[in-house]
Amino acid sequence: MKEKLQQVELLILDVDGVLTQGEIIYADDGSQLKVFNVKDGIGLRLLMEAGIQTAIITGRSAGALNARVKNLGIPLLLDGISDKAKALATIAQKTGIPKEKMAMMGDDLPDIPVMKRVGLSIAVADAASEVRTFADITTVRNGGCGAVRETCEAILKAKGLWNDAIARFYR
Amino acid sequence: MKEKLQQVELLILDVDGVLTQGEIIYADDGSQLKVFNVKDGIGLRLLMEAGIQTAIITGRSAGALNARVKNLGIPLLLDGISDKAKALATIAQKTGIPKEKMAMMGDDLPDIPVMKRVGLSIAVADAASEVRTFADITTVRNGGCGAVRETCEAILKAKGLWNDAIARFYR
Amino acid sequence: MKEKLQQVELLILDVDGVLTQGEIIYADDGSQLKVFNVKDGIGLRLLMEAGIQTAIITGRSAGALNARVKNLGIPLLLDGISDKAKALATIAQKTGIPKEKMAMMGDDLPDIPVMKRVGLSIAVADAASEVRTFADITTVRNGGCGAVRETCEAILKAKGLWNDAIARFYR
Amino acid sequence: MKEKLQQVELLILDVDGVLTQGEIIYADDGSQLKVFNVKDGIGLRLLMEAGIQTAIITGRSAGALNARVKNLGIPLLLDGISDKAKALATIAQKTGIPKEKMAMMGDDLPDIPVMKRVGLSIAVADAASEVRTFADITTVRNGGCGAVRETCEAILKAKGLWNDAIARFYR
Repeated sequence: MKEKLQQVELLILDVDGVLTQGEIIYADDGSQLKVFNVKDGIGLRLLMEAGIQTAIITGRSAGALNARVKNLGIPLLLDGISDKAKALATIAQKTGIPKEKMAMMGDDLPDIPVMKRVGLSIAVADAASEVRTFADITTVRNGGCGAVRETCEAILKAKGLWNDAIARFYR
Repeated sequence: MKEKLQQVELLILDVDGVLTQGEIIYADDGSQLKVFNVKDGIGLRLLMEAGIQTAIITGRSAGALNARVKNLGIPLLLDGISDKAKALATIAQKTGIPKEKMAMMGDDLPDIPVMKRVGLSIAVADAASEVRTFADITTVRNGGCGAVRETCEAILKAKGLWNDAIARFYR
Repeated sequence: MKEKLQQVELLILDVDGVLTQGEIIYADDGSQLKVFNVKDGIGLRLLMEAGIQTAIITGRSAGALNARVKNLGIPLLLDGISDKAKALATIAQKTGIPKEKMAMMGDDLPDIPVMKRVGLSIAVADAASEVRTFADITTVRNGGCGAVRETCEAILKAKGLWNDAIARFYR
Repeated sequence: MKEKLQQVELLILDVDGVLTQGEIIYADDGSQLKVFNVKDGIGLRLLMEAGIQTAIITGRSAGALNARVKNLGIPLLLDGISDKAKALATIAQKTGIPKEKMAMMGDDLPDIPVMKRVGLSIAVADAASEVRTFADITTVRNGGCGAVRETCEAILKAKGLWNDAIARFYR
């Protein structure tokens, strides 16, 4: 598994249930709220600073997601996607990164078409049982509760980049 | 119990405590927010795609609920209902489905009048004790935490429709 | 303890940490949100229908609280209160109910001055340790997670009113 | 450790993951919500009333945070900070309190530069493992779940000020 983690050049994330705990929150005017995790955000920044790219594929869309994506500086957001495998092809074309060097984090059935096409598939701890069965790795933490941070650390540690990534905090 | 699940042609859901964790959220202007579950939503879509109908009976009403119901494509929303048994009669009339072929998911006392009139009554794991005692089935998961997804899967599996419902995700 | 519960004619509730889980939620414009519990609401309605009065004493104030209080039909809301013992005197005067026949539910130090003056003091399970030590009863459930429902049921059951209160749901 | 707690004249707090559970909440219009803890607020008030100063250093900023800071009466808010060690120097200069008499509560890597420069460093129970390893103390409670209250009590108790601080609630 360490070898698979070492080869990751791009981490693709689902949103609801991966970057969040899976809450779909509506206000009375039909607008949405999204609840993200601060430690996931720091993990993604360390990952991107170390040169690993990031992208998001999600079936839904929300201004609340756009705000978080902009805040984190994730360059590729493919939202409102019904066919996630097609979105994966778009990412491969835009980045020039081969699918074997991509990882996908998912929590439910619509993520499987992407998970089966990339080099490394990761399920969050509270993913649907089919997704956990399908994935190469299942995280210890639940979606929205640090599963993304855990994955960022695992990639950086497998590549031997973690100690350098955090060295500046100890100066 | 499998036989009862096989006969379900329509699944009726309560909202607060079943599709949500039971939070009643108010903003300072008196408007409400509702927190739904993304995996419940996928379960309901698979159920409806397989031809099982869905409806909602709730004592409260909120624009936030309307937004989720529209998002999920649930055709029958009976909200602001004080007499839930009467709302059940309306659903029976509109759909032509006999009550014995309906299932009701509830979490508290006002759901019992519907639960006692339908073919299959289901309590969420954290339902009031009276409701759990009354119900034919109690789910493993709490309301808003996947209890509806669990029920959708149980119905589709009892009917032998689950494998077909999810086959497209593996292609 | 059953005797003390039998004598309750008025239940006084703190808000944050009793009717809620203790979250203080602000939006960027400084407005607040409050998260209440649907089962607490049904418990309070059954209590009031059975003739036991209710009141709220809280140190804070918010439009979100006003909305819930109106929704529940609680007649006495004393908010923005710095001296809770004084607010208790106001309630005694307005209702004519002697303090020995009142119960107070609290979760933190500012509730103690009321708890020590009423006939029955109740701490939620996750109250500050000083409050749990001081209270006559500690609930099994946490604030915002059904502690108020549990108390409403305990009062109605001690008075022998519970079965009548819920009989209509079984008809 | 009691000796270190006794010397604290100023408590510095991180926000996300310390005063909150680490949720980053966006609405569709890009505005934020923050969820604080009512018991933390009472702890901070008792601490300030006893003469211990408070300050906040956070990498993010939000109107929602400003509202809570104003509500609590915390005099020093340093937000939108990328270099937290520099912010610490500002606080030392403004208050005239030497760093050895300051305590810092943090949950993640960006808090370490402050934690290593102050007299007492405190990690919340769910802090990143590096932060827990680095800290002098780790709280029993998670961030946003009473970790700040626990720390306020620990400081006041070490200084022998707790009983006086809460005496008025028993009068």
